[in-house]
Amino acid sequence: MGRLIARTSVLRLGPDGERRSPDRLAVEEPLELRVNGKALAVTMRTPGHDVELAHGFLLTEGVISAVPDVASARYCDSVDDQGRNTYNVLDVALGADVPPPDPGVERNFYTTSSCGVCGKASLDAVRLRTRFSPAGDAMLVTPATLSTMPDKLREAQKVFESTGGLHAAGLFTADGELLAVREDVGRHNAVDKVLGWALLNNRIPATGTVLMVSGRASFELTQKAVMAGVPALAAVSAPSSLAVDLAEESGVTLIGFLRGRSMNVYTGAARIKR
Amino acid sequence: MGRLIARTSVLRLGPDGERRSPDRLAVEEPLELRVNGKALAVTMRTPGHDVELAHGFLLTEGVISAVPDVASARYCDSVDDQGRNTYNVLDVALGADVPPPDPGVERNFYTTSSCGVCGKASLDAVRLRTRFSPAGDAMLVTPATLSTMPDKLREAQKVFESTGGLHAAGLFTADGELLAVREDVGRHNAVDKVLGWALLNNRIPATGTVLMVSGRASFELTQKAVMAGVPALAAVSAPSSLAVDLAEESGVTLIGFLRGRSMNVYTGAARIKR
Repeated sequence: MGRLIARTSVLRLGPDGERRSPDRLAVEEPLELRVNGKALAVTMRTPGHDVELAHGFLLTEGVISAVPDVASARYCDSVDDQGRNTYNVLDVALGADVPPPDPGVERNFYTTSSCGVCGKASLDAVRLRTRFSPAGDAMLVTPATLSTMPDKLREAQKVFESTGGLHAAGLFTADGELLAVREDVGRHNAVDKVLGWALLNNRIPATGTVLMVSGRASFELTQKAVMAGVPALAAVSAPSSLAVDLAEESGVTLIGFLRGRSMNVYTGAARIKR
Repeated sequence: MGRLIARTSVLRLGPDGERRSPDRLAVEEPLELRVNGKALAVTMRTPGHDVELAHGFLLTEGVISAVPDVASARYCDSVDDQGRNTYNVLDVALGADVPPPDPGVERNFYTTSSCGVCGKASLDAVRLRTRFSPAGDAMLVTPATLSTMPDKLREAQKVFESTGGLHAAGLFTADGELLAVREDVGRHNAVDKVLGWALLNNRIPATGTVLMVSGRASFELTQKAVMAGVPALAAVSAPSSLAVDLAEESGVTLIGFLRGRSMNVYTGAARIKR
């Protein structure tokens, strides 16, 4: 539980020959999420902050929106061959008046977003399910402040330097204060953990914040920002076409290639204070 | 259909001021996969090579293993607001004697692998479902040949240079010949497309090949290699702990940080001919 790094032995080959040496790996383990005792999802994640992960996942899937929506969250008594708790099954009991999720058949297998209804524009499904609209958020953020975020995210990352294997997500204020940072082998999990932190700290909708991710901005990550009411999403790398479309339609400021003092603003440039 | 790049306008901010200029985005669109008319999965993918994607997905999920297992694969008549076919719904009819997939409830939502049964070691589930064992594959590959693969993969990528937004997967022979390369916004899709190509070309099990991926080696990608009988998986970046565990148990050679003449061999070093 919470083990972030595994040790292994590796054969290193290079111009100077070969040698066997110790190495560190980012730990990846399955987490089964149950709601009211019923299995809902399995994700491959970095152990730790599982309760936040569950809250963020249920928030960005539209199941919950505030702390009281969850009555309890606890690990099941799942054990491995040696009888030890694996801490890989988490059961969330919803509040009495919270409808449980109704996963449609189209969401089986490795579905990673909530779209895909035949003959229906994929963005429609998202807009219908959003409780918080980032569109009216009057936040302003300067390019100078945005420029500080990648370094702050990197400094806050504990594991990446030693394994090279983790994605990071950070939630910042418009003044550039880092509120929370989380790492994971899955980038959607890193975002869910950060947004779960925000929910558990009564910061949903996450007005006046910038969500920063270490990689690319996909439709899925943009959708998570929308579902949490985050007005600005910044990524170190490129956005996809559907991420830009969704950000535009949802009133989210989308920034890509945020590196040093350079950045590309794809949507919502009115929030960039020049 | 097959549109890889979308054009947009972007506001570029940097040390030298700001300017608005055209930009290119990697296209991301949902694909709903149906089997025998029943919705099975939705994935966010780069359009194109959808039939390969469907074959690769069904192969690596253990549903099919050879060309005759699929009777037909065609786009449904799904239309957008303007009545145009979206080409985002693909229906696969299985051969008469092929059992349809039985998605368990634990696979709902954004499940990305086939593990997660409570109280059971996650690797067990995979080993049970593998039709092809890479363990006995006597392939040998030299470090010099491996060193050529990242450049060959990059040269073959058509989209990445202009958008910065795509993952790539390539299937190589042990002599370093590139058999097929595919790109996608989702790395699992890039791998599924390449393995679907292999299946459609009667190369499954993919004995004597190296599967090269542009990013990290996760459990999920390693599992896909195992399911296709690929004896070696090489990644530009780091593997996860569970990827190494699965490679070790399945007899797959796992290479990480393959850059220039340097590489780390995590498992199956006997296939590296020095």
